[in-house]
Amino acid sequence: MRATVIHGTHDIRVDDVPDPSIIKPTDAIVKITASCVCGSDLWSYRGITPVEEPKRIGHELVGVIEEVGSEVKTLKPGDFVIAPFATSDGTCVNCQHGMHTSCVNGSFFSAADKDGLIDGGQGEWARAPWADGTLVKVPEMPDADMIPSLLTLSDVMGTGHHAAIAAGVKPGDRVVVVGDGAVGLSAVLAASRLGAERIILMSRHADRQAIGKRFGATDIVEERGPDGIARIQELLGGPGADAALECVGTQESLEQAVGATRPGGRVGYVGLPHAVSQVPIFQMFLTNVSLSGGIAPVRSYLDELLKDVLDGTIEPGLVFDLQLPLGEVADAYAAMDERRSIKTLLWPGR
Amino acid sequence: MRATVIHGTHDIRVDDVPDPSIIKPTDAIVKITASCVCGSDLWSYRGITPVEEPKRIGHELVGVIEEVGSEVKTLKPGDFVIAPFATSDGTCVNCQHGMHTSCVNGSFFSAADKDGLIDGGQGEWARAPWADGTLVKVPEMPDADMIPSLLTLSDVMGTGHHAAIAAGVKPGDRVVVVGDGAVGLSAVLAASRLGAERIILMSRHADRQAIGKRFGATDIVEERGPDGIARIQELLGGPGADAALECVGTQESLEQAVGATRPGGRVGYVGLPHAVSQVPIFQMFLTNVSLSGGIAPVRSYLDELLKDVLDGTIEPGLVFDLQLPLGEVADAYAAMDERRSIKTLLWPGR
Repeated sequence: MRATVIHGTHDIRVDDVPDPSIIKPTDAIVKITASCVCGSDLWSYRGITPVEEPKRIGHELVGVIEEVGSEVKTLKPGDFVIAPFATSDGTCVNCQHGMHTSCVNGSFFSAADKDGLIDGGQGEWARAPWADGTLVKVPEMPDADMIPSLLTLSDVMGTGHHAAIAAGVKPGDRVVVVGDGAVGLSAVLAASRLGAERIILMSRHADRQAIGKRFGATDIVEERGPDGIARIQELLGGPGADAALECVGTQESLEQAVGATRPGGRVGYVGLPHAVSQVPIFQMFLTNVSLSGGIAPVRSYLDELLKDVLDGTIEPGLVFDLQLPLGEVADAYAAMDERRSIKTLLWPGR
Repeated sequence: MRATVIHGTHDIRVDDVPDPSIIKPTDAIVKITASCVCGSDLWSYRGITPVEEPKRIGHELVGVIEEVGSEVKTLKPGDFVIAPFATSDGTCVNCQHGMHTSCVNGSFFSAADKDGLIDGGQGEWARAPWADGTLVKVPEMPDADMIPSLLTLSDVMGTGHHAAIAAGVKPGDRVVVVGDGAVGLSAVLAASRLGAERIILMSRHADRQAIGKRFGATDIVEERGPDGIARIQELLGGPGADAALECVGTQESLEQAVGATRPGGRVGYVGLPHAVSQVPIFQMFLTNVSLSGGIAPVRSYLDELLKDVLDGTIEPGLVFDLQLPLGEVADAYAAMDERRSIKTLLWPGR
């Protein structure tokens, strides 16, 4: 089959790779309908995470079940499914706590489990381990225009939602969102969905600001650092936000989030803290600002968010501002790298 | 009057100092019944926080109102009161959020506000700013044997409780307490009071273990580091505790708390992070272990905890294993410094 392989910095190609097959009776094979490029894929693309040898990449996918192993009970060929970026058995102690990303049998798409490679999303097919636990069935075959929103449930919408849940966003809250990428915008939508009264999006890009407002942002702050904090305090007429959602993962973004939060407020963080050298613990101690979050257990939120997507309550798929056939994946990465696209959807079948 | 003054490392004396007086109409003067030495006082005593010039010290006190300013409404001479270690007006935006330690008009006993020195607890009298907000009246004059427990509400019991609240301890939880000082032991009591099912106290001292067990610890772990974490996982038969209460403030204790917590679990921290060089943010990200807490807004918990002290539900005063007259304050500090005493109570009137 054809699938995306990263060969080195700025070198991404569609190669011929082995077709996936059922390895364990709990596996399923999914024919991929749509996939996309994640901000975290850019770490390798930009060479920040070195690429030692060519490797498969991608971890967001929706598609149709083609084959199931003999122990798969809840899925059958023809079912349309959403795959969260992490695989999980759904039954272990951590899954029971809703922490599917810490599943004792789990792994990640584009990584490997002890049975071998788990195909990434950016290809024609994928093996999905622990199919009953990992995959979520969509009740009916969705229309094409529903696909982008369903695809966000494999990562960015669930991740933005996790930031809001980690920060305990509740009706009436005043929330700051740091980061205007697809996850930050999803966090705006999640905060709005949870009833936040004010949502301040920190953004300097008109296209992202527009989607942020459509998702429920009540205010935009373009300033950063101390000026950004001062502007937030001015807008809120007080010592800061009840909650800040940190959706970037740098030292500056974490300090921005902590500084924008009122005493006793909560920072929910989902940006991979790749570039965080120092958590401002003393400032947090003196102000009782808490820090919750991490890699999002998207699976645990999927049923709830799926319902809202299907009934039209939310349309997170608006974060996709570029759609390309799989064969043009190099353009997809370049467009996101150069910020010409917020998030790019890939169609393997086109 | 006589009050404790720290002159330098290991040099603590009772000196003659000016009597306090009403400076603002919202002040009260308290005749101190009992005070004590805090673990945080030892930072100066040990020279870790340099003492540039002689300064007043102490911040925990209970006593009897001697005089009130013209605008004090809820207190009168003769009332027995508890003073939390932070002063607060009780009305500002941060106090309304229960964050009295961030009161916009607040300060700390033994520090200064804009009107001048706020006397510390280790003396005969103290000026209490914002008396209506700061002080909590005990309904009746307490018996002498109730004094130690009431005194813990000025700091350590409220601080241990804050660790448990920050970590979201709830009925049925399995909790680890890191630190067997007065705050750690209070955290055990707080977790027990909140309904924790298992409480593992990390302690190597028989006297502290005994009080911990009396306060509700179900297990003691003497090992530290990876061995301590392995022992906790063995005791709990799983990936770690639901919550860890970090009551020390060192790099090792924070890592111990994070490592002892299961994926998705919560660390409540109240140890002043004086000696924390690096929050293990990447480990926290991968496991979704959250970090909440900070300097405890003891005032916000005082009414609730006072009720339980007065009706005998909790007896936090057991942390005091040494009681001395104020004149022997040097012995009090030495005893705590040398770990001969868990916490030492001082009687200014004896």
